[in-house]
Amino acid sequence: MTTPAPRFAGVVPPTVTPLTQEGEVDVNSLERLVERMLAAGVDGIFALGSSGETVFLTDRQRDQALEAIVKTVGGVVPVIAGCIEPTTRRVLDRAEASARLGADALVVTAPFYAIVGPHEVERHFRSVAASAELPTLAYDIPVCVHTKLSTGLLTRLAAEGVLAGVKDSSGDDVAFRQLVLAVAEHAPDAGFGLLTGHEVVVDAMMLAGASGSVPGLGNVDPAGYVRLHRACVGGDWDAARREQDRLTRLFRIVEAADPATAAGATRGVGAFKTALALLGVIDSNAVSLPLRPLDADETARVRTQLELAGLL
Amino acid sequence: MTTPAPRFAGVVPPTVTPLTQEGEVDVNSLERLVERMLAAGVDGIFALGSSGETVFLTDRQRDQALEAIVKTVGGVVPVIAGCIEPTTRRVLDRAEASARLGADALVVTAPFYAIVGPHEVERHFRSVAASAELPTLAYDIPVCVHTKLSTGLLTRLAAEGVLAGVKDSSGDDVAFRQLVLAVAEHAPDAGFGLLTGHEVVVDAMMLAGASGSVPGLGNVDPAGYVRLHRACVGGDWDAARREQDRLTRLFRIVEAADPATAAGATRGVGAFKTALALLGVIDSNAVSLPLRPLDADETARVRTQLELAGLL
Amino acid sequence: MTTPAPRFAGVVPPTVTPLTQEGEVDVNSLERLVERMLAAGVDGIFALGSSGETVFLTDRQRDQALEAIVKTVGGVVPVIAGCIEPTTRRVLDRAEASARLGADALVVTAPFYAIVGPHEVERHFRSVAASAELPTLAYDIPVCVHTKLSTGLLTRLAAEGVLAGVKDSSGDDVAFRQLVLAVAEHAPDAGFGLLTGHEVVVDAMMLAGASGSVPGLGNVDPAGYVRLHRACVGGDWDAARREQDRLTRLFRIVEAADPATAAGATRGVGAFKTALALLGVIDSNAVSLPLRPLDADETARVRTQLELAGLL
Amino acid sequence: MTTPAPRFAGVVPPTVTPLTQEGEVDVNSLERLVERMLAAGVDGIFALGSSGETVFLTDRQRDQALEAIVKTVGGVVPVIAGCIEPTTRRVLDRAEASARLGADALVVTAPFYAIVGPHEVERHFRSVAASAELPTLAYDIPVCVHTKLSTGLLTRLAAEGVLAGVKDSSGDDVAFRQLVLAVAEHAPDAGFGLLTGHEVVVDAMMLAGASGSVPGLGNVDPAGYVRLHRACVGGDWDAARREQDRLTRLFRIVEAADPATAAGATRGVGAFKTALALLGVIDSNAVSLPLRPLDADETARVRTQLELAGLL
Repeated sequence: MTTPAPRFAGVVPPTVTPLTQEGEVDVNSLERLVERMLAAGVDGIFALGSSGETVFLTDRQRDQALEAIVKTVGGVVPVIAGCIEPTTRRVLDRAEASARLGADALVVTAPFYAIVGPHEVERHFRSVAASAELPTLAYDIPVCVHTKLSTGLLTRLAAEGVLAGVKDSSGDDVAFRQLVLAVAEHAPDAGFGLLTGHEVVVDAMMLAGASGSVPGLGNVDPAGYVRLHRACVGGDWDAARREQDRLTRLFRIVEAADPATAAGATRGVGAFKTALALLGVIDSNAVSLPLRPLDADETARVRTQLELAGLL
Repeated sequence: MTTPAPRFAGVVPPTVTPLTQEGEVDVNSLERLVERMLAAGVDGIFALGSSGETVFLTDRQRDQALEAIVKTVGGVVPVIAGCIEPTTRRVLDRAEASARLGADALVVTAPFYAIVGPHEVERHFRSVAASAELPTLAYDIPVCVHTKLSTGLLTRLAAEGVLAGVKDSSGDDVAFRQLVLAVAEHAPDAGFGLLTGHEVVVDAMMLAGASGSVPGLGNVDPAGYVRLHRACVGGDWDAARREQDRLTRLFRIVEAADPATAAGATRGVGAFKTALALLGVIDSNAVSLPLRPLDADETARVRTQLELAGLL
Repeated sequence: MTTPAPRFAGVVPPTVTPLTQEGEVDVNSLERLVERMLAAGVDGIFALGSSGETVFLTDRQRDQALEAIVKTVGGVVPVIAGCIEPTTRRVLDRAEASARLGADALVVTAPFYAIVGPHEVERHFRSVAASAELPTLAYDIPVCVHTKLSTGLLTRLAAEGVLAGVKDSSGDDVAFRQLVLAVAEHAPDAGFGLLTGHEVVVDAMMLAGASGSVPGLGNVDPAGYVRLHRACVGGDWDAARREQDRLTRLFRIVEAADPATAAGATRGVGAFKTALALLGVIDSNAVSLPLRPLDADETARVRTQLELAGLL
Repeated sequence: MTTPAPRFAGVVPPTVTPLTQEGEVDVNSLERLVERMLAAGVDGIFALGSSGETVFLTDRQRDQALEAIVKTVGGVVPVIAGCIEPTTRRVLDRAEASARLGADALVVTAPFYAIVGPHEVERHFRSVAASAELPTLAYDIPVCVHTKLSTGLLTRLAAEGVLAGVKDSSGDDVAFRQLVLAVAEHAPDAGFGLLTGHEVVVDAMMLAGASGSVPGLGNVDPAGYVRLHRACVGGDWDAARREQDRLTRLFRIVEAADPATAAGATRGVGAFKTALALLGVIDSNAVSLPLRPLDADETARVRTQLELAGLL
């Protein structure tokens, strides 16, 4: 008897949401972005995550983006949809919309803005999972929600079948390793997906037992992440490391924006979109307020990194 | 020539949003709550703030609550409406709804969830104020949004007329005092409202130069806060201190919920609602998921504090 | 029957430790500094606190500074000596030295560097107080030690006579107010000293029930803090506020150092020493590595503030 | 031409400092501990690190422990000595003692307690390295000192030869991977040692490019870490992962102490010492105040983990 493969595994890039200059969803660009990912061989698509500027979009725009993604994917791989709202009821409204629009699973963070503790966090995930039609993955992203999901909580919810997996963007590799082992012991038959969100250590986290990755940088180089994943799965760790090293260098595009005038989301999402525009995948590097798009100098620095990585 | 009085000043309680057992807005209870505040002599009402469970409500519920508050207030005092969303466009959608429903001003936090820096924060407030019809107050609440608004930013936006005031829930009295002086120097004619959100140090912050307060505990004892404010304005600091000491003791209702199973919002909003239900002002102490209502033991502890404070 | 006055009350400035260019304690300057404080009418001296660069000095230098202070004070007011070390035994070694050198009380922080929780923190204070000859005050300074002392802990240790007082540099005025009331209820006869360390809100904290202050800025203008304290004690809150406002503006000397190349301790202690050198009280504005002294431009900005405050 | 091997590489366990019941250094136990590590084939010894309770020991005790370690090691492998003090001069005093007692290198953290910024941190390392006789390694441990050393700083100091390596206990695998690549590009000939301090992800960090590890758990199972290291170096990643998985499970001894009454250091160092006492390597599981030793129930839980790991 073997442990079942997690349903949510492999390379699952979190798509950016291309925008027009007027701030509307650029559906054509989004379709091209997703098609390129599928052509590269990705194993799933994560719609409306942090890279997707979810918290910047209106509900109408979120629906529009998810609809376009589901249509483009056409059932070839699972689409997991971010339902990123501060509290339970608002998450459930997004869960309903996601199910209606054809998503295959939900991704839900701990509550945010609201000041909560472990009991509220657990009640949140249990309430969402109990009411939602689709399988629920936890999104562990303390840098945004300021709560770290504990190994104990995740293991318990995995074992009970409340959660189908986790996207780990916690930056806490020690906890992730402990989670891998705890899930193997307490929920061996759950098919619980252990996805790392850290695009520069995918090889290391795969060695540590991850099921796959949700790499923001996979917007820019999905083929690289597919090669990396296959090398890991095939046990060719030297090849994996080489590919990872190239991608880790490519990740320096997020340092292109001037730190004196741009922070976190501007630098990250702004760089991904700028790279995609330079690659001709999307039409514009426009981002949502209060972010700003990268300027000409910053764009030139992104171009340099794309050239060094062999993408331009 | 004298400095103009801020338009947003005095006691401006942030209303809780009473809920039915089914989680819907209990409009009758809300009306009674607001009427009691008006009868106590408050100077304004803050709708849909943190105490109002804004981030737990759907947009429809927010509209319903705001509409009931505006109708009940009937123009007697200003209604300021929380527009608490992570990013600019979503705030502007709430700003539009608030104006349509008759609010007199907006209250806006720094972006949250999104990872931003000082430039994004400043662009956020400038963009909101430029597009919104109503005056905008900043809501400085780092415990929820994890960004402290700097004295420099607030002073600049006060002097330029971008912001009409601040609700300070930063817990940083040193910065608040520095802001008071900076506003007096750089924006003396702005009528900039300096409202403290810390209900247990209103006397001290009034001495330090606040224009008024936004006390969550003012849901429970609005008359106490009106007396406190009048004592401060009248220079009777001993009376102010005695009233504040009583209210500070009353604030111990937020310690009624068992810390082993309840955190921040459960303990605070849960206690305010429980007290109001005990006082017969609202029908139920129901709160939104993932919070839980206070149980019988916890309710008994709230009752004790109400008795000690002379309210029951 | 009345509550006994705390022994440690009034204005208790935390002396800087003047240094020579070679980094040795400048005893003559230190004596002049302390004499000026005594002449201003201070109620105590806090030696070897954060402003005193304690964690930058060797044990020999600490002894030298404390010895000079005790000698200069000559028993006129109490000398309280910082025993700032990461853990219990090291604190006790400093406690022994402090007693030997003639200090009247100890000031002790929560453990630092070591990762501890509430039980370790409580054991630390109990162990120190049990072994030390002198009364012990807690130093609540989370910005340095990254632990906030809870109201419950402080009240308990006050009631049991373990601690003789607290220097509150927590920046948490809400907790301070709650502590004032809790001590009044649970330790009314303890003579527990409630000293605020925030020099820009002394009037507000005195209104809230503080026994006195430990103002770093009291190095520069001890007479101003004595006037402020007396106004508070005499109930002349308008005079207190005016004096405080002047001092709060004077505190802008800590913004003189360029934030691009200087942080926290450089800006604070560096400015105090520069002001004292400009005032002719100490010979040099030298600070300890890795801090740097303020340069000529920065010194000019300090001079401007001293002039505005009427000190030069 | 090949990149030189770092001098500080391989398995370098940070020794605990065994204590007697009276709190004195138990030199005999310490010698046995070190001999067991040497017999296991470790590549170096890290004396007086966080696991060594450095900040709990007096200078005399530190000297005693370091002397015993150097003598026992007898030059077979390098001894690197923690010089963990808040500020530059105090570090240099420890650096001098370390050199005098025969250490081969120093390990130095960012300043702590003192409030500093990037310029002060850089000046600290440059000042220490300029004055110290021995090579200096940086100790990146934000959980204790509350400053993360930036990739830029470490790369610059590596390239200039100021630092000989880093012990990374930052818990930030993303930054560690970026550091590995930056050092390879900018300081390829520096022989800069990249040591991970996270004992549960050594395989992953070795894949990512670490030179070795400083595993606290290596006190308990040095042979396991030597096998793990050799598997990594030999490219047998499956064997490495199996060994790491076993060790990661063994690391659960740090969960043995009751979290209701014991935090961080008590749970970690307390467990290591308890395990070593159970294994007969050291005489007592005594720890320094304000920590407490593990009790009988907790010790039983450690025993269980030792048995599961095949050590008992």
